[in-house]
Amino acid sequence: QALDYDTIENELHGEEERKMSSSDWKWIQFQRWIICMLIGIMTGIVAVVINICILELTAVKMHVVEQAIIHCVKNRCLYVPLLLWIAINVVLVTVASLLTVFVAPVAAGSGIPQIKCFLNGVKVPNVVRFKTLVTKVIGVIASVSGGLAVGKEGPMIHSGSVLAAGISQGRSISFNLNTRFFKHFRNDREKRDFVCAGAAAGVSAAFGAPVGGVLFSLEEAASFWNQALTWRIFLCSILSSYTLNFFMSIYHHHPGDLAYPGLINFGKFSGSYEGFELPIFLLMAVFGGLSGAAFNAINHKITVFRLKYLKAKYFKVLEVVFVAAVSATIAFVLIYWNPECKPLGQDPYVRLQFFCNDGEYNTMAVLFFTPPEESVKSLFHDPLGALQPLTIVIFVLPYFFLACWTYGLQVPSGLFIPSLLIGAAWGRLVGNCVNFIWPDDIWAQDLSKYALIGAAAQLGGTVRMTISLTVILIEATGNITYSLPLMAVLLLAKWVGDYFNHGIYDMHIHLNKVPILPWEPPALSTNIQAREVMGTPVVTLRTVPLVSDICSVLSDPRNCHSGYPITDSEGKFRGVILRTQLLILLKHKEFVERGGSSERIKLSVFRDSYPRYFPLSVINVSEGEQQCHVDLRPFLNPSPYTIQENASLPRIFRLFRALGLRHLVVLNDEYKVVGMISRKDIWKWE
Amino acid sequence: QALDYDTIENELHGEEERKMSSSDWKWIQFQRWIICMLIGIMTGIVAVVINICILELTAVKMHVVEQAIIHCVKNRCLYVPLLLWIAINVVLVTVASLLTVFVAPVAAGSGIPQIKCFLNGVKVPNVVRFKTLVTKVIGVIASVSGGLAVGKEGPMIHSGSVLAAGISQGRSISFNLNTRFFKHFRNDREKRDFVCAGAAAGVSAAFGAPVGGVLFSLEEAASFWNQALTWRIFLCSILSSYTLNFFMSIYHHHPGDLAYPGLINFGKFSGSYEGFELPIFLLMAVFGGLSGAAFNAINHKITVFRLKYLKAKYFKVLEVVFVAAVSATIAFVLIYWNPECKPLGQDPYVRLQFFCNDGEYNTMAVLFFTPPEESVKSLFHDPLGALQPLTIVIFVLPYFFLACWTYGLQVPSGLFIPSLLIGAAWGRLVGNCVNFIWPDDIWAQDLSKYALIGAAAQLGGTVRMTISLTVILIEATGNITYSLPLMAVLLLAKWVGDYFNHGIYDMHIHLNKVPILPWEPPALSTNIQAREVMGTPVVTLRTVPLVSDICSVLSDPRNCHSGYPITDSEGKFRGVILRTQLLILLKHKEFVERGGSSERIKLSVFRDSYPRYFPLSVINVSEGEQQCHVDLRPFLNPSPYTIQENASLPRIFRLFRALGLRHLVVLNDEYKVVGMISRKDIWKWE
Ligand SMILES: Nc1ncnc2c1ncn2[C@@H]1O[C@H](COP(=O)(O)OP(=O)(O)OP(=O)(O)O)[C@@H](O)[C@H]1O
Ligand SMILES: Nc1ncnc2c1ncn2[C@@H]1O[C@H](COP(=O)(O)OP(=O)(O)OP(=O)(O)O)[C@@H](O)[C@H]1O
Ligand SMILES: [Mg+2]
Ligand SMILES: [Mg+2]
Repeated sequence: QALDYDTIENELHGEEERKMSSSDWKWIQFQRWIICMLIGIMTGIVAVVINICILELTAVKMHVVEQAIIHCVKNRCLYVPLLLWIAINVVLVTVASLLTVFVAPVAAGSGIPQIKCFLNGVKVPNVVRFKTLVTKVIGVIASVSGGLAVGKEGPMIHSGSVLAAGISQGRSISFNLNTRFFKHFRNDREKRDFVCAGAAAGVSAAFGAPVGGVLFSLEEAASFWNQALTWRIFLCSILSSYTLNFFMSIYHHHPGDLAYPGLINFGKFSGSYEGFELPIFLLMAVFGGLSGAAFNAINHKITVFRLKYLKAKYFKVLEVVFVAAVSATIAFVLIYWNPECKPLGQDPYVRLQFFCNDGEYNTMAVLFFTPPEESVKSLFHDPLGALQPLTIVIFVLPYFFLACWTYGLQVPSGLFIPSLLIGAAWGRLVGNCVNFIWPDDIWAQDLSKYALIGAAAQLGGTVRMTISLTVILIEATGNITYSLPLMAVLLLAKWVGDYFNHGIYDMHIHLNKVPILPWEPPALSTNIQAREVMGTPVVTLRTVPLVSDICSVLSDPRNCHSGYPITDSEGKFRGVILRTQLLILLKHKEFVERGGSSERIKLSVFRDSYPRYFPLSVINVSEGEQQCHVDLRPFLNPSPYTIQENASLPRIFRLFRALGLRHLVVLNDEYKVVGMISRKDIWKWE
Repeated sequence: QALDYDTIENELHGEEERKMSSSDWKWIQFQRWIICMLIGIMTGIVAVVINICILELTAVKMHVVEQAIIHCVKNRCLYVPLLLWIAINVVLVTVASLLTVFVAPVAAGSGIPQIKCFLNGVKVPNVVRFKTLVTKVIGVIASVSGGLAVGKEGPMIHSGSVLAAGISQGRSISFNLNTRFFKHFRNDREKRDFVCAGAAAGVSAAFGAPVGGVLFSLEEAASFWNQALTWRIFLCSILSSYTLNFFMSIYHHHPGDLAYPGLINFGKFSGSYEGFELPIFLLMAVFGGLSGAAFNAINHKITVFRLKYLKAKYFKVLEVVFVAAVSATIAFVLIYWNPECKPLGQDPYVRLQFFCNDGEYNTMAVLFFTPPEESVKSLFHDPLGALQPLTIVIFVLPYFFLACWTYGLQVPSGLFIPSLLIGAAWGRLVGNCVNFIWPDDIWAQDLSKYALIGAAAQLGGTVRMTISLTVILIEATGNITYSLPLMAVLLLAKWVGDYFNHGIYDMHIHLNKVPILPWEPPALSTNIQAREVMGTPVVTLRTVPLVSDICSVLSDPRNCHSGYPITDSEGKFRGVILRTQLLILLKHKEFVERGGSSERIKLSVFRDSYPRYFPLSVINVSEGEQQCHVDLRPFLNPSPYTIQENASLPRIFRLFRALGLRHLVVLNDEYKVVGMISRKDIWKWE
């Protein structure tokens, strides 16, 4: 199934527009802005809820486990806190996976690939449904506090998109709620624009990166850059950021202090770099590209295995539970083994004492026990001696594999934070080496820049975004000094990674065989013509067909297409009617024999039935009605985009991609329909 | 005239592609990257040249005038330094204006509107010619050092674009230089992509804002966001920034220190803001919108006056000279009158003593005598008491009008810095007020944020960009803390300004009656059909026409169209041939009667004659040849985009805009050509 980002045009729409005054038009424009503001604010609020729930749950969990450890270190009953820890994690994670598997499987993973497909024009079932939102929110809270190697960022982006889709339609089908508002936006095209805004608001809330959000939704998603739309996305993004900052500043007891540094995700960076450090950064980029490619390759293997062998639902849940238990065990064992203690400084975050003396903390627990975002902060900002290289090595290797294993589990899970964590860890190691080689130079004292570059390289090597990621990292770290090296590193990491495989999101999209269209037509395809691409023979209808004809076309599963060309008695092309329009016409018995145009079906009927159309089976057409006629002329699109038989594939591709079409009629030089080209026809040529 | 951003397709191209192996294809892709890298580096170097020349020239000028003043304060001969100052300015500015008026008038102004038109698809004569580049570079150096109220930023963007157009073609027609390289990119479409990159590199070099550069070229220019293209633009942008930083760091005697704060345009901001300051910022945004709108309105009046009365070339030069003299006089008088002296601190920039005691400087001279970029820095960063409010008021009012008068003169002149200067000045005044009301609060001690917000509001109110401007300001000030208020302010200033008039660039585009296409189809135009839009009757040709037919079509000035539909004997549509193709065919005497296809004209001939085609008059066709035939079939595009007679205007608009077409053939249901739609036909409906 695909989405149709072309505008629907027919007589009904023309009539509506003729009645519309220019103030009605302005009112519609105004509504767009209102919706975008609502989307921004709501996304911000959802992000606040996610953030606070995770913070609180983790705090409770940490407190409980910590008490048990303190108790058991003395009493030699260490299996108790281990079991306790595992139990808490397993319970949380089970909630997340049960919800995901049984309520909304599409909520699994980060949601970014799904949103990408949606914006590209592929229909992913349930991707913007309310139940997906609920699953996503509860699931991500549970899986992050449940100690999996996941982040909350990807899911926030997905949540923003669902909110956008919901709000822009002015109703919820799940709740059987239908307001009078926003009726005008009930079609694929308008919805897409709002989902773009929602995704941007999600990024903005996830990383405190409003500009990054706009860029994300443009880089990953949009094909046609429209200025007015971009401004709306921008507004939405800003509002989401403000809302989040506002509520979080209250939560942190600094109400109204929107520039409070605790709101910025990765803490403030203050250092600078020297020109001669660039080669080191670039080497790190190469390593990041390799490591990211390795991550993707391993994840690919695991995903293929999963697709083949883990099909049963309870298997999926079991796997999640197993991963949760393994994660907790590894963490516990490594913390247990870690012999290193450091005296407590004044740190914002709880540090675990474990077997250390009073006033000291276990360094491994900093990495493994706190939520991953806090670990990233520690790796970025802890002073030179705070973490021993060995501790980091012991941490990063198992964590890499855990993260690899976790992404793709049936829980909502973001990939950004784990990648950043891995990268920051090995980046810090590089920093340690540099510091070891030039122990007396001041520039080599500052590990935070190496951790940051490592994080960027790893993330870039995995997801392969560049511009939006640069901006997101700049905004999340609040530092602009590193923008040049960050860009260079992200670009190089992408190149290195691309040599081996696709970015992880594209990889998952390919694994699911989604007919997503790339940015450019396939190489060297100018000599491929429409007649080789198109589907033929075409199922067509007459301008005033018999009901029985329509029924027979609609009911044959082989003819289940998105649109049918209409031909007149000479066989000339007259327009295209959508399958969904036919369904509605049949249901409302819009038959010529039943009366004149006085009681003609309204446009609002078409809008109201969007997007979940009923199946053919609910329509009852009596024996007598089969012989009636339906006048399709007011409903068909009389002048859709068409193409000649001998048009080249790049030409077709560009038309399809730039305008977001769902189908394209191929005409011969007699103006007769000879074929139909749909998304899949083009996709096959990749 | 328009540009054609559709790809050219015909048999020749098909053949070429059939012979092409996939490694040839990769090689072409690779060349694109190489070109973008060259563009980035060259733009950076040009920016270095401009920067250093301006710095040196200004230093010399300041030194001379300063010495004269020191000498004359004692000897009561103050008219000498005034005349000296005026003389220096007038000489410099005259160079700039003579070059502009007599060599390349298109180099006047900032160049941003011209680049915008070019990327939109309108041919602006000479806009990317080498002589324009030379004029631009020398002109901007002269006009900035000549003390006009102009900046060097806009011209840098234009320079980057010219460089891009030049490098990507691998030759210079002005120099009669033709390399073997980059032949594949000799068409409008490829050139456009590189010009995008060049514009981005220009922004990147002008403000040290590589991400801002990419966004600028996307916000102002591109319609179709292509990921691979974006990455190339990004690379180009980064390289330009690096090149500039590298050379400037050498110039500033910090070789290799790429993060040296002196490289950042407006100095480092370090402060923060409180949530409750937001309303103040928003009020400032409203004021900025109003003031920007006023600026545009006044400039509009002046421009209309100029277009009407100042048509003669020497008038134009005279006006420039006059403005230069007036600018210098006003500055001198105000400095003279300014009674305020301050003790010298440790400041990076020369401060003028004038009538002050030794060890003191004149505060007005800080604003009026230094180059505008330095004045902006002073307004941003000077401590609380350094500039008295009254000094600023006396400065900003005349400067506002000077800037207004200057933009549109026949010299290369950027608008960004003057706007920032005006905004920073009144922003600082607001800061002074706030400080007056809450004298004891720490947050009110920091004037730099008010100056920054004021600068943003003023600039946003004048040029009406948002996203790219936000990012440019963030990058240029090296501070991310203010990103949220900056965005809010830019958006609000734009809204307020839009209520009154267009942005200044759009205003100048409209004044020149350029048929630029907006982002969205005109409102409520669904009921307008192709048959009302199209031009008719159509001039068509046969597939194998007589030479005399072609000549008569080409020579009639009323038939001077970009393309002619080809019809067969039944009148059916067979393709489109471009006017330029016909010219080349005639010139090379590609007549059927002269021999077979063995010596058929090569694709390279078409590429080589791009973009400056000869006029019809250079083609000699003898009497006998008039009766020959030309077989157009190998050269025509057999399947261009076409549209039906009853297609709606929004549909046509989207096709045209998204694909960057130059003409569109309208067919009826017999597959016969009934009309042609060109850019102007659509533009008329605005
Ligand atoms: N009206 C039609 N008559 C005959 N073949 C068609 C028609 N419409 C589409 N096809 C062909 O059917 C095949 C299946 O295409 P696909 O499933 O991508 O499109 P669809 O079913 O029309 O749309 P969607 O799946 O988006 O609802 C394609 O090869 C396409 O060319
Ligand atoms: N082949 C043609 N025959 C008749 N009219 C044409 C033809 N091509 C364009 N026109 C019409 O000529 C008018 C002038 O259009 P315009 O100058 O924008 O286009 P052009 O001359 O074809 O292209 P350009 O100016 O870009 O070279 C328009 O109304 C257009 O519809
Ligand atoms: Mg289908
Ligand atoms: Mg013309």
